[in-house]
Amino acid sequence: MRLIRSVSALSAWRRRLDREGVFIGLVPTMGALHAGHRALIRAARLSCDAVVVSLFVNPLQFGPREDFSRYPRQLRADAALCRAEGVDVLFAPSREDIYPAGFSTVVTVPAVSRRWEGESRPGHFAGVATVVTKLMALVRPHLAFFGQKDYQQAAMIRRLVADLDLGINVRVCPTVRDPDGVALSSRNHYLTSAQRRAAPVLYAALRAGGAALLAGARSAVRIRRAMQRVVSSEPKARLEYLAVCDPETLEPLRRVTDKAVLLAAIRIGRVRLIDNMLIKR
Amino acid sequence: MRLIRSVSALSAWRRRLDREGVFIGLVPTMGALHAGHRALIRAARLSCDAVVVSLFVNPLQFGPREDFSRYPRQLRADAALCRAEGVDVLFAPSREDIYPAGFSTVVTVPAVSRRWEGESRPGHFAGVATVVTKLMALVRPHLAFFGQKDYQQAAMIRRLVADLDLGINVRVCPTVRDPDGVALSSRNHYLTSAQRRAAPVLYAALRAGGAALLAGARSAVRIRRAMQRVVSSEPKARLEYLAVCDPETLEPLRRVTDKAVLLAAIRIGRVRLIDNMLIKR
Repeated sequence: MRLIRSVSALSAWRRRLDREGVFIGLVPTMGALHAGHRALIRAARLSCDAVVVSLFVNPLQFGPREDFSRYPRQLRADAALCRAEGVDVLFAPSREDIYPAGFSTVVTVPAVSRRWEGESRPGHFAGVATVVTKLMALVRPHLAFFGQKDYQQAAMIRRLVADLDLGINVRVCPTVRDPDGVALSSRNHYLTSAQRRAAPVLYAALRAGGAALLAGARSAVRIRRAMQRVVSSEPKARLEYLAVCDPETLEPLRRVTDKAVLLAAIRIGRVRLIDNMLIKR
Repeated sequence: MRLIRSVSALSAWRRRLDREGVFIGLVPTMGALHAGHRALIRAARLSCDAVVVSLFVNPLQFGPREDFSRYPRQLRADAALCRAEGVDVLFAPSREDIYPAGFSTVVTVPAVSRRWEGESRPGHFAGVATVVTKLMALVRPHLAFFGQKDYQQAAMIRRLVADLDLGINVRVCPTVRDPDGVALSSRNHYLTSAQRRAAPVLYAALRAGGAALLAGARSAVRIRRAMQRVVSSEPKARLEYLAVCDPETLEPLRRVTDKAVLLAAIRIGRVRLIDNMLIKR
């Protein structure tokens, strides 16, 4: 595995492959790799000749009161995981290399990103869209892999890649969960053990929404009420939002006809947790 | 020459060149080609293996009260010019192909584009940045050619290409002028012959600013005053702005030390005309 730490070295590596017809997969990450990332890397390894994992804790996607400075950084462990999984290039650029002085371009996808996480975290999705566009332009992958856990992010990136004709196939891989249903996330480590015991309520709420749908509920109000009841059963959980949406546009649905995505965000203490469930009837 | 009218056909054409090492030049235009465009095409022809001219009257970069619907459209004449100049591909996609239903990505470069034209034409530069990003992603040229006449646009595109690591060399070619100094522009055709006779005042004002600088003036106020005097000598001209700026950031300068760009916009009747002069001491 090659560890590449600069934009110029990555570009040079990529250019050398231009005439070789190598099929390239990209797994963009912020590091602190866990089994969810590993599943993305394995999916890439199975379908691509060369796998690039990018590792960049992107300051643009953190709000001023968010956890940028304490976000876990563990390059050695991440590199070991990548090596063990047969990654070809671990691209871990510096902040200055990605955002040199004078940097000022912003990529946004307002329609898909203004609601839900976008409302809770102003500027977050513009940060994601901007850095992903850059990574796509640098690595020029044929396939890019994202986790379903960040559903709205994945929907936004699909839209962005189509809109800008980036010519990249976006694969969204299933969320990896702990045995109690909690979606893996680097932010789970912020939870105390008592808080961690309360965390399964989030996925339980989504399952309750899914069950209501299977039992015949069609109105979003009823489905949301089923989810809400579960969340309010857990005193440690504070609800941020519950939504029943169109899986592509993320516009809220009043009634579910064929497919929907249930989105949920809660806070436990100061830790925000999000999860989702995609439902096709 | 191939006339390509769809995004998918252009992508297929481009992909076939991937492994050939062909050096590609792109000249993005809105059609109504004149000698200014011809100079860009010739510059591309001299330095590239394959030259692509794109022709797309981009609705996103026109304001609601601007001239989108009456902007000159003359595909046959444009194709003839391209053929005569040895263009390899004329890419003239439809509006629906570039902006299919659901399109919603926006690219902006606020720092460079908020002033001057950006202030006079809200949304204009976001429209330009978005379509240029798309064209760059589709054509993946090695070199892209822009005219200096739209100075702020060229500065924004330089910034955009660097920021998003598009890996494209941006060439800004000198403005082509009529013998009386008027910069060529498809919009000159909107002028009546009496208005056309008043149009040289714009470049005359820039020359006066340049002359003031050469004569030793350093303060932006004095240089602007020299330009202003010329504009106000022409009763048909209404001043929009005169600016003395940093050539890269387009921030206004108080004093000129080494280099500057003079930007000017006027209206003659309902026609807006812009021009500029780059000065290096």
